[in-house]
Amino acid sequence: MKKAGILGGGQLGRMLLQAAANYPVETYVMEKDANCPAAHLCHHFINGDINNYDDVYYFGKKLDVLTIEIEGVNLEALEKLESEGLQIYPKPAALRIIKNKILQKEFYRNQQIPSSDFVVTTSLEELHAQHEFLPAVHKLATGGYDGRGVQVIRKKEETSLGFNEPAVLEKMIHIKKEIAIIIAVDNTGKTAIYQPVDMVFDQQLNLLTHQLCPAVLPEKVFWKAEAIAIKVVKELKSPGIFAVELFVDIDDNVFVNETACRVHNSGHHSIEACYSSQFDMLWRIMLHYPLGNPKLIMPAAIVNLVGSEGYTGDVFYEGLEKVLMMDNVFVHIYGKKITKPGRKMGHVTILSNEKQELLHKANQIRNTLFAKAE
Amino acid sequence: MKKAGILGGGQLGRMLLQAAANYPVETYVMEKDANCPAAHLCHHFINGDINNYDDVYYFGKKLDVLTIEIEGVNLEALEKLESEGLQIYPKPAALRIIKNKILQKEFYRNQQIPSSDFVVTTSLEELHAQHEFLPAVHKLATGGYDGRGVQVIRKKEETSLGFNEPAVLEKMIHIKKEIAIIIAVDNTGKTAIYQPVDMVFDQQLNLLTHQLCPAVLPEKVFWKAEAIAIKVVKELKSPGIFAVELFVDIDDNVFVNETACRVHNSGHHSIEACYSSQFDMLWRIMLHYPLGNPKLIMPAAIVNLVGSEGYTGDVFYEGLEKVLMMDNVFVHIYGKKITKPGRKMGHVTILSNEKQELLHKANQIRNTLFAKAE
Repeated sequence: MKKAGILGGGQLGRMLLQAAANYPVETYVMEKDANCPAAHLCHHFINGDINNYDDVYYFGKKLDVLTIEIEGVNLEALEKLESEGLQIYPKPAALRIIKNKILQKEFYRNQQIPSSDFVVTTSLEELHAQHEFLPAVHKLATGGYDGRGVQVIRKKEETSLGFNEPAVLEKMIHIKKEIAIIIAVDNTGKTAIYQPVDMVFDQQLNLLTHQLCPAVLPEKVFWKAEAIAIKVVKELKSPGIFAVELFVDIDDNVFVNETACRVHNSGHHSIEACYSSQFDMLWRIMLHYPLGNPKLIMPAAIVNLVGSEGYTGDVFYEGLEKVLMMDNVFVHIYGKKITKPGRKMGHVTILSNEKQELLHKANQIRNTLFAKAE
Repeated sequence: MKKAGILGGGQLGRMLLQAAANYPVETYVMEKDANCPAAHLCHHFINGDINNYDDVYYFGKKLDVLTIEIEGVNLEALEKLESEGLQIYPKPAALRIIKNKILQKEFYRNQQIPSSDFVVTTSLEELHAQHEFLPAVHKLATGGYDGRGVQVIRKKEETSLGFNEPAVLEKMIHIKKEIAIIIAVDNTGKTAIYQPVDMVFDQQLNLLTHQLCPAVLPEKVFWKAEAIAIKVVKELKSPGIFAVELFVDIDDNVFVNETACRVHNSGHHSIEACYSSQFDMLWRIMLHYPLGNPKLIMPAAIVNLVGSEGYTGDVFYEGLEKVLMMDNVFVHIYGKKITKPGRKMGHVTILSNEKQELLHKANQIRNTLFAKAE
């Protein structure tokens, strides 16, 4: 059996390992927290720091193939491992671009991939000097995650909210909707493209309320979005799973927001809704099997379960039984012991051929299921 | 988190643990082989003998809830654990009946559940004396598994093929088809019934070729089969997952063949084909959540991958890549290192609304995918 490693042991690792058990593969996970969601689902759990050169290097030396479930890993160790023959999905060269928002934006510009205008700032002083570029979004070059490291700056007086370190300042776009497209690339360059997903936000709270697949898009926008996503992935020149997040503006222009080079929250519906899930697909790529079928079995929605505001501590799931009584609903609890406001604790997938039912149940679930602490 | 244990670490345990990772539960497995299919997918693997009183007892004392993935476990330890308050699915009293083919047949007779006529034999001498009862099937009272412990005896001269230990001799039925019905029972007595499955045999080789769900049955037979299966489960008076295997004879009479009180091979299609799989359902029962929805998302077939005749040793999967190229097919490899003739190495599920496609692909897979050794 091939020895396959995952850097990071969160929920993405957990779901990867659920899928791995359909294949003959020996699994390794490295993560600092021995109680992380993926720790108990692999053959070998290694307690280590995915940002530490030595930890990553010696982890990689045990393996035939390696992937990541988070971009914040030691890149130099991956480059060294690759130079010594380890297969890494995604390639370190692609990860280098994705991992740093400055390089990522420059990549889009250099490849003439539509993305919002931007300037690079390295200090609050430089940010302040860019006040004519506002309104804009300030994003830390590295280290941002799950909404951290992102700051909207509407006017000159707000520049002090920005970051006093390397960052990109992205011109604000009049967003009509946000979508995501997951693309799988195998090591011969073949691709499999999943249907686009609508990422629907509550404008008031600026919170993702649910995701819907397939996204509701005029045909013209659909083709544009797919062509752009394919271009992003082709130019990254790496096998793996990629999630391209896109903005559609009020004039139906399409822009890349950002790209992940790993399995992604916007693809979780694929576990039940697609013939080959994003997790199944990554194993096929890593084990050099044929790509799977990304087609939908049925339209789907997902609702993320994030830690409720005001609760930190040992989690309990308010409303879980009510959600488990729904007929066409699939619950995924990530098994984290501690909840914190905004922490990803689980997700719920709904399958239905009726869009109204998807939306109705998504709304019901959002108003029923909460991760709270005693 | 509740602490839940599984006695046995084979493929059923493996698939149970894949499903467990959707819930907040701490998992324990006991099994003698530390490389068994389920060993690496639980929080705590305990190396022990599931037939040993002490091993089972001390394993159970760590737990809030316990289940089995094979009937051959130490029953006395389970009874003791239950008397000390452990929740066990199925109840030891139900397992006692199922585990012993003599008690099982007597149970059907006592409950007036249709099943073939039988006599009990305890030696070859007693078997020989029953020659007027032939043709019949001789089944070991305990210890039979996967076809072992079962012998067809057509005529007097063949009685020497039988067992010189406690066994049942079952009158042969003119079987038109074999079906199976999976029923879930929660701890309040509520039930959820899966659609019947056709178990299709190659008459010449006496090998299960594929399973088809829903089974193709005249309505009258469908209702009879479901009523009988419900009666079996009701009279066993235990929560858990039950698989009732039934014969339909040439006159459309329905007889119970045998019952399993655990997740079962005939329910594997439910992973992809049902809203709540048999594995998901058992977790709901054990964690006292509401029962799930057993309905079909789409009709399904499964093909078992068993070790090819003539090969014993380190397994390789001939034809796996071809099967992975099929569009609506889901491969489950159980991760066993060694293949042996007839050993269950994996299964493949096919989803389609077209019965012809299910049968065609099942046939194709059966002629493509083999578990062989170098």
